[in-house]
This record gives sequence, C-alpha cells and structure tokens, in this order.
Amino acid sequence: MTSESTTTALDRTDPEREIAAAAKRNRNWGRWGSDDVRGTMNYLTDDLRAAAAGLVRSGASFSLSQSFDMDGPQKGWRRRTNPIHTMLDTGTDAAAGIQGFPHGLGGADDVVSMPLQCSTQWDGLGHIFDHGVAWNGRPAQEVVTSLGDHVTGIETVANGIAGRGVLLDVGRHLSTDGELADGFAITTEHLLRTIDAQGASSAVRRGDLILVRTGQLTRARRHGWGDYAGGPAPGLSFTTADWLHDSEIAAIATDTWGFEVRPNEFDVAFQPLHQVAIPNIGLFLGEMWDLDALAEDCAHDGIYEFFLTASPIPVTGAVGAPVNPIAVK
Amino acid sequence: MTSESTTTALDRTDPEREIAAAAKRNRNWGRWGSDDVRGTMNYLTDDLRAAAAGLVRSGASFSLSQSFDMDGPQKGWRRRTNPIHTMLDTGTDAAAGIQGFPHGLGGADDVVSMPLQCSTQWDGLGHIFDHGVAWNGRPAQEVVTSLGDHVTGIETVANGIAGRGVLLDVGRHLSTDGELADGFAITTEHLLRTIDAQGASSAVRRGDLILVRTGQLTRARRHGWGDYAGGPAPGLSFTTADWLHDSEIAAIATDTWGFEVRPNEFDVAFQPLHQVAIPNIGLFLGEMWDLDALAEDCAHDGIYEFFLTASPIPVTGAVGAPVNPIAVK
Amino acid sequence: MTSESTTTALDRTDPEREIAAAAKRNRNWGRWGSDDVRGTMNYLTDDLRAAAAGLVRSGASFSLSQSFDMDGPQKGWRRRTNPIHTMLDTGTDAAAGIQGFPHGLGGADDVVSMPLQCSTQWDGLGHIFDHGVAWNGRPAQEVVTSLGDHVTGIETVANGIAGRGVLLDVGRHLSTDGELADGFAITTEHLLRTIDAQGASSAVRRGDLILVRTGQLTRARRHGWGDYAGGPAPGLSFTTADWLHDSEIAAIATDTWGFEVRPNEFDVAFQPLHQVAIPNIGLFLGEMWDLDALAEDCAHDGIYEFFLTASPIPVTGAVGAPVNPIAVK
Amino acid sequence: MTSESTTTALDRTDPEREIAAAAKRNRNWGRWGSDDVRGTMNYLTDDLRAAAAGLVRSGASFSLSQSFDMDGPQKGWRRRTNPIHTMLDTGTDAAAGIQGFPHGLGGADDVVSMPLQCSTQWDGLGHIFDHGVAWNGRPAQEVVTSLGDHVTGIETVANGIAGRGVLLDVGRHLSTDGELADGFAITTEHLLRTIDAQGASSAVRRGDLILVRTGQLTRARRHGWGDYAGGPAPGLSFTTADWLHDSEIAAIATDTWGFEVRPNEFDVAFQPLHQVAIPNIGLFLGEMWDLDALAEDCAHDGIYEFFLTASPIPVTGAVGAPVNPIAVK
Repeated sequence: MTSESTTTALDRTDPEREIAAAAKRNRNWGRWGSDDVRGTMNYLTDDLRAAAAGLVRSGASFSLSQSFDMDGPQKGWRRRTNPIHTMLDTGTDAAAGIQGFPHGLGGADDVVSMPLQCSTQWDGLGHIFDHGVAWNGRPAQEVVTSLGDHVTGIETVANGIAGRGVLLDVGRHLSTDGELADGFAITTEHLLRTIDAQGASSAVRRGDLILVRTGQLTRARRHGWGDYAGGPAPGLSFTTADWLHDSEIAAIATDTWGFEVRPNEFDVAFQPLHQVAIPNIGLFLGEMWDLDALAEDCAHDGIYEFFLTASPIPVTGAVGAPVNPIAVK
Repeated sequence: MTSESTTTALDRTDPEREIAAAAKRNRNWGRWGSDDVRGTMNYLTDDLRAAAAGLVRSGASFSLSQSFDMDGPQKGWRRRTNPIHTMLDTGTDAAAGIQGFPHGLGGADDVVSMPLQCSTQWDGLGHIFDHGVAWNGRPAQEVVTSLGDHVTGIETVANGIAGRGVLLDVGRHLSTDGELADGFAITTEHLLRTIDAQGASSAVRRGDLILVRTGQLTRARRHGWGDYAGGPAPGLSFTTADWLHDSEIAAIATDTWGFEVRPNEFDVAFQPLHQVAIPNIGLFLGEMWDLDALAEDCAHDGIYEFFLTASPIPVTGAVGAPVNPIAVK
Repeated sequence: MTSESTTTALDRTDPEREIAAAAKRNRNWGRWGSDDVRGTMNYLTDDLRAAAAGLVRSGASFSLSQSFDMDGPQKGWRRRTNPIHTMLDTGTDAAAGIQGFPHGLGGADDVVSMPLQCSTQWDGLGHIFDHGVAWNGRPAQEVVTSLGDHVTGIETVANGIAGRGVLLDVGRHLSTDGELADGFAITTEHLLRTIDAQGASSAVRRGDLILVRTGQLTRARRHGWGDYAGGPAPGLSFTTADWLHDSEIAAIATDTWGFEVRPNEFDVAFQPLHQVAIPNIGLFLGEMWDLDALAEDCAHDGIYEFFLTASPIPVTGAVGAPVNPIAVK
Repeated sequence: MTSESTTTALDRTDPEREIAAAAKRNRNWGRWGSDDVRGTMNYLTDDLRAAAAGLVRSGASFSLSQSFDMDGPQKGWRRRTNPIHTMLDTGTDAAAGIQGFPHGLGGADDVVSMPLQCSTQWDGLGHIFDHGVAWNGRPAQEVVTSLGDHVTGIETVANGIAGRGVLLDVGRHLSTDGELADGFAITTEHLLRTIDAQGASSAVRRGDLILVRTGQLTRARRHGWGDYAGGPAPGLSFTTADWLHDSEIAAIATDTWGFEVRPNEFDVAFQPLHQVAIPNIGLFLGEMWDLDALAEDCAHDGIYEFFLTASPIPVTGAVGAPVNPIAVK
C-alpha cells in the first residue's frame, strides 16, 4: 500500500527531498487547463451534488462551525488573534432613549475584526506556496500581493462547495476514548481502517468533501486551548499525500488548528503536507471544524454520509475564509 | 385583502399609531415559549428541510452573496464601511524568499475588518427594538449591551437556516426591464401577483425562506452604488407586515440595502417595517443578496423553488452576520 | 499625615464605604464650573507651561512610550488585544514592480487596529464612573454611549498636556534593585520619602505632570509579560487619593498596566482608586509609560524635573488614547 | 535662483528624467553613515532643541492635529478609510448597572481601526521608494515586507521630533483670502517671499521643523471634503526639491492630504516630489496638519517660530504614523 511504503521510507532529516518527491508524484498542474483556479473543486460536479442531496432523510442539520469569539484558540502568533467583536449601537442605548430614531425604533449594530483563518475556515489555493510557486504552477508573486489573491481568491469557489460529505471519525475508531493523542500521525492505513469500521456509508469517492475527526477539539473544550494554535495536535501524516491525490476528493477538513500532525514528521519542518496538498494537488483544506455533534449522530445511526454545504464568505482576494458548514442528514 | 385595506388606511403622518397597530396584530411573543430565541426560524422543521432537499434535480448551485470588498455599497454612515481586507503575508514576500519558513514553504495569510452588516447578511433578532423592547418582549438592555447580544446572538440560529427557498422575482414580473424604480413599495398584492405569474413552484408555505428580487442591485451594478447605503430603493411596503406574519415564513431576503422601500412610507420615519418584523414577528430579514444569476435560471426553467442553505458566520453575540447563501436546484 | 491615618483606617471588607468617603473628601465637581470637561488639566496654565519650558538645558529628549506591537502586555481580557499592524502595500511589492505607479514610484502603507488603551496611554475623564456618575456629576449615560464620549472625549484635552514633568522614581528609592515587588502599595509617605530623597528638583507643585516609576516594566522586559495585563503589580495605594487631590497636580502616570496596586487593597475590588480619581477628582491617569531611560538620566544628573509634552491622539469621543510622551531636559 | 531655473526647465512629459536629475542632485545617501535610519532628523540636535525651548514666552499651546473620526477626508481609495472608533464598554451600560464590577465602579473602553496615514501624520522613511530603492540606498524588499518596516520603522524617530518650528503661512501671504487655489504649485520663490513677508522670526535654519499653510483645510472645513483625499489641492511644487535639500531642514508638513501640489506637475505622474524627498533626501513629510489656530496667533503677534513637539505613535514597523503635534509659543 502506498502510504505504508512511503511511511517506511520517510526520512525525517530530509524534508526537501521527501516533499519534492511527493509533490512530483501528486502534482495536478494543468489537469483542468492552464487557467484553472478551482483545483480539486473541479471534481465536485452538479451530478454529484444532485446525488448528494438524495442522501437527506430526516432533515436534521448540524452546524460544523466553532464559535467566533475571544474564547477561540488564537494566541497572537503571526498576528493571528481571535475575532474582536464590537458594537456600533446597543440595546442599552436604545432603552435609554438616546439613539435619535423616530417612532420608537431602536437598533443595535456591530463590527468584527478578525484574521480570516481565526476559526472554522477553508484554506484557499493562494494560502501556501512551494518554493515560490502557487497552484497550477503560477509564480507566487503574480498570485498574492498586498492587495490579495488576484487569481485564486476564495471568491472563485464561492458557489460550489456543496456536495457529499463523509465523516471519518478516526478518533472514535482508533482510540479508546474517542480522542487521538497530540502528535498522533493519521496514516492512509488509519483512514482505510476507519472507513472499513464505519461501513458502506463512508466509502470515499471522487468529489467528496471529507471530514476527519481526531477528537482533539473535544479535549481542548474540556481542558482549555492552552498553546493550541500551532502546538501539538493529532493530524494527517505527511504520508497521506498520495491518498489525498489518488482518492480525487474535492476537499478535506479536520477539527484541528493545522490539519496535519503537529509536531510535523520531519526534524525541522513547518506544515510540509500543506506544501504538497495546496499548491501541488490543488486541494482545499478545512481547519478548526467542530465535528462532535455530527459524529455523535453518525455513531448513533451508523450513517456517515450527508449533504454538506460549506461555502466560505467570499472576501475578494482572500487566501482563506470563514465558513459555517452545514451538514444535513 | 389585508394588505389592500391596510394600504388604504395608512396614515403617512402617524407612524407611531400605524406601527403600534401592525405590531399588535402580528406579534408572536410567547408563541414558542417565553425563553424562545429563534422566532420564525421555529417554522423551519427537519421535516420541511428534508422535503426541500427533494427539490434538487440538476445539482446546479448558485451563490447568492455579493462580494465582500471595498467596492461595496457602504458609505461610512453610522460607521458602516465596506470590508477592509489586509494581508499578513503575501506571495510577493514568499517569492522574495524572506519569510523564514523551512524547506521552501511559503505562505499568505489575511485579516478582515468589517461591519457585520456590510454586505450579504442576515439581521439577527437583536438588531431592532420597538420602544426599547426586543424579540419576545424582552427589555432591550437585557439583550444587547456593549458585549453583544447575550440572548438572541446570531449563533443561536447557526445550525438551522437551510430549507425550501422560493424566489419571488417581483422586478421581472412588475416592470418592463426587470428593475423596480427606487421608491417603489412592494405590496402584498404585488407579491401575490408575482406568485401567480410564476406558477405553482413559487407557492409560499410555512417555514419557507423567501427571496424577493427587486432588480435594484442589477441597476446598481450598472450605474455604481451612488448614495445607495440608505438611499432610495425599491422594497417591501410597510403594509406587507400582515402577510409576513400570516404566511408563517421562516425568513425573507431582498437584493437591497434595507429590505423595505426607501424612502419609507411615513413622512418622518426610519425602517418602520423592521420595527414590526424583527422584535414583534420575530422574523429574520436578509439584505444585500445577489439574486440575479438565480433569477436568470428560474426564468429559464420556470422553477422558482430550490434547496437553500444560508447559515450565517456564528460570531458570538452578533446582531447580524455575513452569509454566503447557496441555492441548489 | 492624611495618608497614614487613612491607611490605618482602611477596612478591607468595606470598599463601598471607603470609596464613598474618599470620593466625598476629594470631589472637585463644580470647581471649574458646571460645564467643565478638563478636570485637573485646568491646573496646568500657560504660565506654568512657559516656566516649564525654562527647565530645558541640554535639549536631550526621551520618548516615554512603550512599543505598539504584538509583543505588548495585552492578553485579550475584556477584548483588549495588542495592536494589530498590517500592511496595505509593501516594499516587496514595490521591488517586484507590480504596484502600477508611474515613473518608478513605489509605496508602502499600513493600518492599525487596536484598543485605545493597549499601550502607553491616558485615561480620559469618561473612562470610569462612580455609581453611574461621570466627572463633574454627570449621569454616565449622558456622557458615553456606543457613539463614544460626547462630553469629555479625549479631544477636549488635545492641546494642553505639556508642562512641568516630575519623575518620582519610587522603585529606585524604596527598593534595593530598583523594582518594587508586585502587590507593593505605594502610599503617600512613600511618595514623600521619594521626593525627599531626590531633592529640590522633584518638589511637586500645582499643575505638575507626575510620573511614578515602580520598576515593574523593567522586570517585565526581563522576564516577559506573563499575565501582566490586570495581574499583580506594584502601584499607588488607595490611600493616596487625598494626596492626589490636595497636591493639585494636573495628571499622573505610572509604568504599570493599571496605575494602582494590584491586587487591589480590598477583599473584593476592582480599581477602587480609579473610582475616586477619575470621576470625582477629575484627574488624568497615564498607564504603561516607559520611564526607564528617563530615570537613568535623572539618577545620573540628579535632576528630576523636565519639560513634558504628552498630547494624546485626539480620536473623537475616545475615553482613552495612545500617546508618545516626550520629556526634554 | 535654483527653483526658478528648474521651473523653467521642467518638462511635463518626462517625469522619469526630471525625477532622476532631482534625485541625483539632492541625494543624501551615506551622509550619516551606511546604517542610518533617521535621515534629515539627524539635523535636529540636542543643542538646537534646547535653543528652541528658549522660544517659549507665553506658554500658549496649540494642537496641530485634525480630528480622528469618520468625518475625515478619506474616501476608501487604496483601502484608506477614516478612523473607525467603537466602544468596548459604555456609560449607558454602566448606568444600567449591568457591567458586573464591584463597589459601584463603571467603565468605558474603546477600540480604533485606522490607516496610519488617515489623518494628521508623519510619513516614515519606508513610505516611498524610488525604482525599488528605499532611503539610504537599501533595496525596498529588504526594508518593508508584510511584517512592516524592519529598518526605518517610525519607532526609530519616536524620541526626537521636538525642536524649532517655523510656520510659513503661504496661504495668507500669497492670496487675498488666505487660501491658495487647488492646483497652486508653491515654488521656492513663493516660500522665500513668504519668509520675507513674515519677518525675522521665520528665517529657516538647519534642523527646523517647517509648517507650510496653504489654507486648503480652511476651505475644506467650510465646504466639506468632497473628493479631497488625492484630489486637487495646493501644495509644494516639484521644483522645491533643491530647497528642501539645501535648507537642511529636519522635516516639513502641510495642511493638505498629499504635501505636494495636486494634480502633480507632470502629465502622467503620482507624487513625484515624494519620490525625491523621502528615499533620496531622507526627509520627513507631514500631512493633514491643522495649522489654522496657530496661524491666527502668528499673524496676530508677528512671531512665526515656536517650540514644536511632534512625536508619532511608535507603532513598530510603521511606514507612517499618527501624531498630535503641539506648538508652544
């Protein structure tokens, strides 16, 4: 099996070589034309979306969004803070009768200031570069400047991220308490074992939106965030790059800050799987999703597939964007 | 017909009395219990959501979101600006090799600062008060303080706004060019005539998510925003309050800044229909939605109903929130 | 001595009574007319300012501002973050030749988002209320709404905070290492002993701008901020209220987050000296000033007085504002 | 006279050649060493500062800052907005007794989000580049990245901008109503004629901080801002570059958005004088200062020199920064 053999070969001391090899094996540049801006989202066709709507039975809906507030995981690193929400007008002012509106009208209004990747979010294709090269082989400086991402801004996928969602509850199936330990690297074998344990409804197909639950959010909720943002966490192993490519999924999200295992699997490294997945595979990664309520429901009825709508707020030129994903079963 | 008789009676000089009467007729306080925080969203049940998923045929999806950028309609009034998007890291920096990441990784990251109602959005139930009273009869000062909406914050409906959407393309059916004039007040009769013209797929039922296209956005896109934010626009007449209540819809959105007709229909007034709809009916109002592409498709196939997912970003305590609504046909 | 007797009497269990008594003894309401908005800044007259300019000898200048960046003391408590500085344009973009300006011009531009009291700052008179009452006896709700401070906004003292500065280096004179311990309450006696130790140049007079160095910033700089923002720190004792009033100083600043000693001197309390000083005395308090370089110089030449200009950025309606104070000796 | 002959020769069609020539004539690179970060601020020595303090007579102080609020001149161009000031806590909340503080304490707190050059400000030396080169000959990409200005950030001059200020009220001396017309280019001859008209107190010397009043702000205040930010305005002629260099002033500020005349004096151009002044001369430029009250006083007593303190808020790495300049006469 690819992932096993790759795992065996992984040289912790040479990320450059490992990344280059994985990137070369899995590179999708040109697959959807030289002017493509949607990467693996191309796999998610109208036909697949229509079929996915057919999965809805009870109509129960689940928001997969964490909260957007000051209690979030950000610690200020790289100027990433939690969302700062302030009021422009309040009910207190309205009740005090000082707003100046006619006929008894009162109003409240508000503002938010936040990094676009502070809470539940999609990484856009302009978020990560491989040696100065962005998705589809474009020079990074021609894609993302101080004015934003002129080519693959998140608005380019504003209308399409709705289709078949599949939950892979790795935390539940590979641990006794539903929570993988920090530093646990989820390999392709782990993913396949989880699929096998969950049954037919979790078969992964082209165009799917895959959700991987590690259980780390469950733990963070219980213990507090600590040094969560960037600190140790379970996550996907670098060695899943081939599966991410070969499975032809449209997107994949986890319940952790950084998608891949932390610390990373090389001695000196920072998010090496991102470097293969985003600029080379053209894959959309979701981070900090809250999969717990959905996971409870899936464990209860044994059905791990659903209709998932996860359309980001289309901030023009954004390299990532907040989303409130809705799974309907 | 209710709206006609009400229209006849509307006294332009006495908004206080008209609003009080409409509020009394249509007040839903206590309807879903004294601790309710979801208002008309209670109409949208799992059963209705499941049935709505059955409307999907082709799988074609439409984003109903306007862009989130500096080209938006805001003019600074009441400190409402357009979204300010800035970069924390860029592709230019990555290409210059100055980011300090290992193994050739480069990254881009970004931040946004924006009023929560700057572009496509839902008004939350804490957005408007009637004589210092919020939804379900609560004192405004006990609901929304400087810390936000403690009771009906937008996060309380984070998981539920997905169901049957119906487009009422009033612009198309009541004008020759698809665009209602600024100041045009859409009455209940206009809505009913549009439903009649569109046919069976646009019958309005309990729990529906109604989208009213005026065509004003089409015009703004052609001519520029001008003094759009708060300026003259077509929109719902104050006299539709009874229909909004009696139809038992879950929510309603338009393609304009302020949902209701501007200037308002009283001599001295500011958004009187909001004062009835939000704190009294408990109705969710959407504003600045982009309905044009969807409207084209509906006009083409004659089908005006679809599966609509429109879940706001759950900024904790927000009185309104951005949303990227996705209609799937 | 007032402070000693007051200290003796301080009942840790009854802040309400102690605060009420101190407020009554030291209340300046009406002293400068019923419409006054400048409080103790009235003491700082043109004559005193002219005399202060005469203190300048060498022309050496000292910035008393801490840095404004993400390395600051804020931890997110009460939504107070460190300043978030982002670029609108960069040199990297300019060098890449992608900015589109003519004739070889390139530019960089930037934005900041920050609490007005995140770093070196003045508290405005609208910052603190005593039982719902603001400076000069005004109801708090008539002074500061969601739109800001309509009466005593920091812009009302934009032009006047320049005059005789006096450094009281309590840290140096009351400790062996120049740093008071966290929780050390500086009493009036401590202030007087410091003045006595420093000599004639530090005599405190009407209209002066007093700077109290505790040495806590020196320690924070060495050890990191820890839980600094709101955590334990040396600072003025509640019992200095009478001296603050009787000395007729125009303003007073420290090198700590919260001016007064932390934890506060009552069993259950939050910044009780603020409650007397700002709304009752009408006194301007400065926080998080960097007094170390100035203190070195004063210790060297034995002269503790100087010309101090400390004019806040006049954000209209602000209840506090950043300042870069400049001392010239 | 230099400016006259230069003016004669100015070729409107060839900004590249004119700028290159002016830059070469006036370039100060290396003048203060290869590692210099303070440019012309080096001219302002302690001795000069001490002498300037001796100019103070009456002690009258003038704030030269415009307001920082939504009524400012910014229109959103290049994402430059006016300051957005929001409250974290209010007096209304305090009066309603809902803040949760002990012993009757109430508080108000606030936040600002603003471009650093939205109102009264200094341009830092990293603000403008000449063909990708920053002050002192450094490559722009090594100076200002997405993380800010690593070399010449405004904090490098946080402690020094205090010295002799001289007002040149060109508006008063070269027009009948005190206001130069938009598009009026102030030449060196105009500056010299103003100095001559004003008398001995306005002689310009090495290390001075020069303030040039055009009167445009006076007009904007009367008529509203219109398209002020970047629109037509009086200002310094490109041909003053040599005087700016030869006079050895430390800094110069005007009461306009862009310092130099708008439209600029070449057929296709954008702020060509900036391109010479900042990266080549190393000169600090101030913009949007309010000189009106000071100008009134100077006209009244005939004294145009004063002690000026104008220290920017030291946002680390900023390429410009807000300032509340204080002139004391």
